[in-house]
Amino acid sequence: MKRPNVVILGAGYGGIMTAVNLQKTLGVNEANITLVNKHNYHYQSTWLHEGAAGTLHHDKIRIPINDVIQPSKVNFIKDTVVEIKPQEKTVILEKGEPLSYDYLVIGLGFESETFGIKGLKEYAYSITSINSVRLIREHIEVCFAQYNNEVEKREELLTIVVGGAGFTGIEFLGELANRIPELCDEYDIDRKKVRVVCVEAAPTALPGFNQALVEYAMNHLEQRGVEFKIGTAIKECTPDGIIVSKDEVVEEIKAATVVWAAGVRGNSIVEKSGFEAMRGRVKVQPDLRAPGYDEVFIVGDCALLINEEINRPYPPTAQIAIQMADTCAANLAALIRGKEGELKAFVPDIKGTVCSLGHDDAMGVVFGNHQLYGTQASIMKKMIDNRYLWKLGGLSLVLKKGKLNFF
Amino acid sequence: MKRPNVVILGAGYGGIMTAVNLQKTLGVNEANITLVNKHNYHYQSTWLHEGAAGTLHHDKIRIPINDVIQPSKVNFIKDTVVEIKPQEKTVILEKGEPLSYDYLVIGLGFESETFGIKGLKEYAYSITSINSVRLIREHIEVCFAQYNNEVEKREELLTIVVGGAGFTGIEFLGELANRIPELCDEYDIDRKKVRVVCVEAAPTALPGFNQALVEYAMNHLEQRGVEFKIGTAIKECTPDGIIVSKDEVVEEIKAATVVWAAGVRGNSIVEKSGFEAMRGRVKVQPDLRAPGYDEVFIVGDCALLINEEINRPYPPTAQIAIQMADTCAANLAALIRGKEGELKAFVPDIKGTVCSLGHDDAMGVVFGNHQLYGTQASIMKKMIDNRYLWKLGGLSLVLKKGKLNFF
Repeated sequence: MKRPNVVILGAGYGGIMTAVNLQKTLGVNEANITLVNKHNYHYQSTWLHEGAAGTLHHDKIRIPINDVIQPSKVNFIKDTVVEIKPQEKTVILEKGEPLSYDYLVIGLGFESETFGIKGLKEYAYSITSINSVRLIREHIEVCFAQYNNEVEKREELLTIVVGGAGFTGIEFLGELANRIPELCDEYDIDRKKVRVVCVEAAPTALPGFNQALVEYAMNHLEQRGVEFKIGTAIKECTPDGIIVSKDEVVEEIKAATVVWAAGVRGNSIVEKSGFEAMRGRVKVQPDLRAPGYDEVFIVGDCALLINEEINRPYPPTAQIAIQMADTCAANLAALIRGKEGELKAFVPDIKGTVCSLGHDDAMGVVFGNHQLYGTQASIMKKMIDNRYLWKLGGLSLVLKKGKLNFF
Repeated sequence: MKRPNVVILGAGYGGIMTAVNLQKTLGVNEANITLVNKHNYHYQSTWLHEGAAGTLHHDKIRIPINDVIQPSKVNFIKDTVVEIKPQEKTVILEKGEPLSYDYLVIGLGFESETFGIKGLKEYAYSITSINSVRLIREHIEVCFAQYNNEVEKREELLTIVVGGAGFTGIEFLGELANRIPELCDEYDIDRKKVRVVCVEAAPTALPGFNQALVEYAMNHLEQRGVEFKIGTAIKECTPDGIIVSKDEVVEEIKAATVVWAAGVRGNSIVEKSGFEAMRGRVKVQPDLRAPGYDEVFIVGDCALLINEEINRPYPPTAQIAIQMADTCAANLAALIRGKEGELKAFVPDIKGTVCSLGHDDAMGVVFGNHQLYGTQASIMKKMIDNRYLWKLGGLSLVLKKGKLNFF
């Protein structure tokens, strides 16, 4: 019997965990497993904001794929996916030959969504990849380095605008607040000259968190020098900064650095390949297969799943992507073994959500409704991060890349 | 009897060593000594190229003035000199009140000299100060960080042009050659894509060194990836790079980083203040006083002194500036003590010249005519550097800022 070809696209949380699960579950004679990713490393997108702020080196955020994949069981191809042809069961790559599959796993992750706001694509940075975050880190540094070289000092060199007070925006602000004093020290700059401004169009920061937690986060960040402009929309991003409006009052904020952290969407390759999608996210069946394609699974940020309790989609989080990878791998193994009747429905198990506010502060909800603040929450956050590394690569990976600075 | 006011302008090699010598020589009741400098630190301009390449942190290059000056003996004013009024024996400062002096020491150092080459001032960086070199370091980093973020890769982001193959240019190239592999590692860049091009208008690199030493330096740098274009003049610097010409053939070299290391001149305040000067350098009397002003001494890069043996000016080096400070302080003490007859003529004692080619390679001439290469020369270079620190601030300064990584 011919071994089926399983092709996994993307080595983000969903893709790499599916590959790791499959290499544990399947024998080498049961399937040919191929993992395609544009870099030869996996990165933790939930840690990217730390790389962008410069509080964590990007090498701590990424993990060489060969450190967690066994080449005897999974064939890794470093290439960029151009298009999927689901009718022909083929994947078109940028450099290599087209790949045929019997089963496909789409784990192509997220892209930044700018909602058509003028100038954002051209002039704002976004926290999307290792490449993008080390550029943000260096861009902020070069602006600080420039400041004292000018006769007429330009305060906008020291102004950083963060677009969005959602999860990523808030976590990034927490790291920036830690980083700014170090940068001031490095470049002989008065801390008072530096502005960090967070602009959020919604009427509150951190939608989905209760008021007490939101206030805790905002107060703690404000104490560390962050300015919030809530209910304020970015109208335009220019080479000089941003133009915002609140209650029809328009204001320009001059800033050399604008980081857009307010919107993500699924990978646009998904729509381009003919799957019916909303902002790159396909409403998957309970077993995570794409409607109409029984051999195509979608995991992570490209999969849209409704939380029946509140009739709204689950947010595209790492936690859910990792859990999807468990269901996806189990279902794939069932199909490969001809046990279609054993396909399971994906049921998320939300263990909690902790939002970090820098290396020693955080807040969140765990174990149902238990609220955590400060050091306790910060330790919980690090334990969650380390738990994932354990799942992905065992103790050695926790020791290499884990967050072990608990205090 | 009223104590005379001694004002020292600039805390470069000449200025700070004059201050340190005076605080050793004079009793507190003999003179009021004031040192004016625009930063609250002294920096070693002969190490600046290392800060620019990013191989040595700028805090290792600078020394807080209060670490070497005793406040009980020398009054330090952090301010910028705007003009000297030698007729009125007054110094105009940017922020503070004008300073009156009985004796003045001008040690205002060098500026970059662009010889009117179009665009150099606007688009090229120069190695002149702590502020300028940490900007060069960060500018190179942000270019490397940018590279992988672009769909159409621009090789010029990875091209660094160094204008000038004199002492500073060559030493900077040596550090860059060490730094490039680290940068490639940091930003996932293929070393082969990086170009470091040195352009020199003169018919040879390192004028003043003999042919064997020049060839040693060029060969060793070429082996480490540096391209030389000797006898090639920079015609213009643009936002995109430089335009050069050799034998009437004009060529554009696209480069995101152009560092001009080919010309220095004395501080332009010197001319502006009415002293007769050539490129900011005043032809001083043998006792280092300015012609026509018996109470004004000039040391370091603003002093022009003819080497009678070859009838050419001595180069403006740290070695000579430091030796001038000895003579200047001794002559000042003599004047203050009313012993005008004891004024000494400055006699330079050139102990040798060693040019570094990175952290573990160098070449040069010491003890008259003895040529040194490689590790031996590199150790000698570090010893020379440490000897100065010893002279300036004793053992503790050598331990804090010295180059102790001999192997």
